[in-house]
Amino acid sequence: MGKSSYSSPLGVGGVTIHSPGTVANLVCGFDILGLALNAPYDVMKVKLLDDSKVIIHNKDSFNLPTEPERNVAGVVLLSIIERMENKIGFEIEIEKHIKPGSGIGSSAASAAGAAVAANHLLGNIFSNDELVQFAMNGEKLASGVKHADNIAPCILGGVSLIRCIHPLDIVSISSPDLFVTVVHPQIEVRTSDARQILRQQILLKDAIRQWGNIAGLVTGFLKNDLELIGRSLEDVIIEPVRSILIPGFDEVKNKCKEAGALGGGISGSGPSVFMLSKDEATATTVESVMKEVYNKIGIDYNTYVTTINKKGVEVVAE
Amino acid sequence: MGKSSYSSPLGVGGVTIHSPGTVANLVCGFDILGLALNAPYDVMKVKLLDDSKVIIHNKDSFNLPTEPERNVAGVVLLSIIERMENKIGFEIEIEKHIKPGSGIGSSAASAAGAAVAANHLLGNIFSNDELVQFAMNGEKLASGVKHADNIAPCILGGVSLIRCIHPLDIVSISSPDLFVTVVHPQIEVRTSDARQILRQQILLKDAIRQWGNIAGLVTGFLKNDLELIGRSLEDVIIEPVRSILIPGFDEVKNKCKEAGALGGGISGSGPSVFMLSKDEATATTVESVMKEVYNKIGIDYNTYVTTINKKGVEVVAE
Repeated sequence: MGKSSYSSPLGVGGVTIHSPGTVANLVCGFDILGLALNAPYDVMKVKLLDDSKVIIHNKDSFNLPTEPERNVAGVVLLSIIERMENKIGFEIEIEKHIKPGSGIGSSAASAAGAAVAANHLLGNIFSNDELVQFAMNGEKLASGVKHADNIAPCILGGVSLIRCIHPLDIVSISSPDLFVTVVHPQIEVRTSDARQILRQQILLKDAIRQWGNIAGLVTGFLKNDLELIGRSLEDVIIEPVRSILIPGFDEVKNKCKEAGALGGGISGSGPSVFMLSKDEATATTVESVMKEVYNKIGIDYNTYVTTINKKGVEVVAE
Repeated sequence: MGKSSYSSPLGVGGVTIHSPGTVANLVCGFDILGLALNAPYDVMKVKLLDDSKVIIHNKDSFNLPTEPERNVAGVVLLSIIERMENKIGFEIEIEKHIKPGSGIGSSAASAAGAAVAANHLLGNIFSNDELVQFAMNGEKLASGVKHADNIAPCILGGVSLIRCIHPLDIVSISSPDLFVTVVHPQIEVRTSDARQILRQQILLKDAIRQWGNIAGLVTGFLKNDLELIGRSLEDVIIEPVRSILIPGFDEVKNKCKEAGALGGGISGSGPSVFMLSKDEATATTVESVMKEVYNKIGIDYNTYVTTINKKGVEVVAE
């Protein structure tokens, strides 16, 4: 790949962005579907430097590494620096609100936020596909695998289909204005562990059922067919294995659906669980149900009642 | 299931229908996707009898069985008779133009045509879902498996998604006005054999690639995105196994794509091969390419250049 060059004046003040949480997989679309949330989101301030280095300041209490090579945003910025002809660097201040390991795209928010902010400072010289490629370096550091099902919706907003990763083929899917309720039970599920417990071989008959659901879900989004979305939110392959790692999962899911949620399941590799609802009242009732279950089990949790974020990473100040 | 009753006068003259050929699977959508063709189609004349029996007359040279229990249309009509309170029967004249074993839904055309014609004579007392259920009895006789990926588009027209077979969930997918070229090399591939050579277990990574393509294909249809349709017409699971049964398959596919086809592959379980094109000129060029390959190999063939049939089984005379 050739080098890119930057022709704007150095030393502009910097940029502040909001980088949203995301729900990957969307139950039946393992590794190929994701959507962006309006809450929570990380806040980042990024400045351009005239020396090829990355300086990281953490403005939160998560104690993430500040060495660029070990920091998700850092490796993304390093990969951008490497692509530039000019000698440039970045200073970045990160205030994370998306807890690492929550399953709602914390690493993707860091990676995508850094990529979009850097591109903005460079005069938007990179395409969205290139930004996704840069940001996937962050996912590689976080989970060992370059996947785009959080990165793509984080950058583009809305619902993203990653039809193919080699070569990268991302398609935006329109969707109804759904409400999303998320519960993050405070237990640890490492993405790498959640990947390792999956079977490498699956039954063809299960795959057929799964691809019927995926086609149904995408059709439901594009046709604004809420009932179809609900019927299609079924996962016969990943959820039966991964849900074992999440205490209370079956109870949360069943009771939320009884309370009127269209459906839902594990967010990304968990432990967060998300539910889609057609209106705010239902989404709030669903939140109470989630709280009730985890209060009873005695596990701490955070919840969010939010909507689908249609913008993706947003520049809020320069 | 309760009995249905029929309250119109017996002895009406009868009905003539056209029942279209269909392309099942659509490359990446094994068992869940299918589309209807404007050519070829079968012609059937059906009359109502006041005795519970089925009389079959063949008006073609395929020598299909005329005992109702061994005839695809026959078993469908028997299943309808069984559901009726009234003592009724049917006399049916079948003129098949879709060669049995061609892979473009010959059995589905017989089954779906019989179901729709019977329902018409009975005053349309059954829903489309019920007609699909009746017609699947014909598929069960023909191939040993109740599948709806030919039946559904044959009855409904256009592109059908069979999201789920138990319980039956059929979704119509709108599509651009594409041209379809079909070549039927005159070799025998039995549907039951084509099913048996499939592996019962598949790799998760292949399944992920496949469901990306399925989601892409459905999105391409719904958004009229021809490039996306083309990119998504890829099958990494079934085609590599089944194409071995079809001489010349790789050459036909590659040369048709070079000639401008969006893409295509095995129609149903073969041996027919279909290609989608954006206009008639391309579809006709694609036909010449197909002829050239099979002339060279020395296998007889039929070809069709046609369009997507949006109506499904059609009543043409009463």
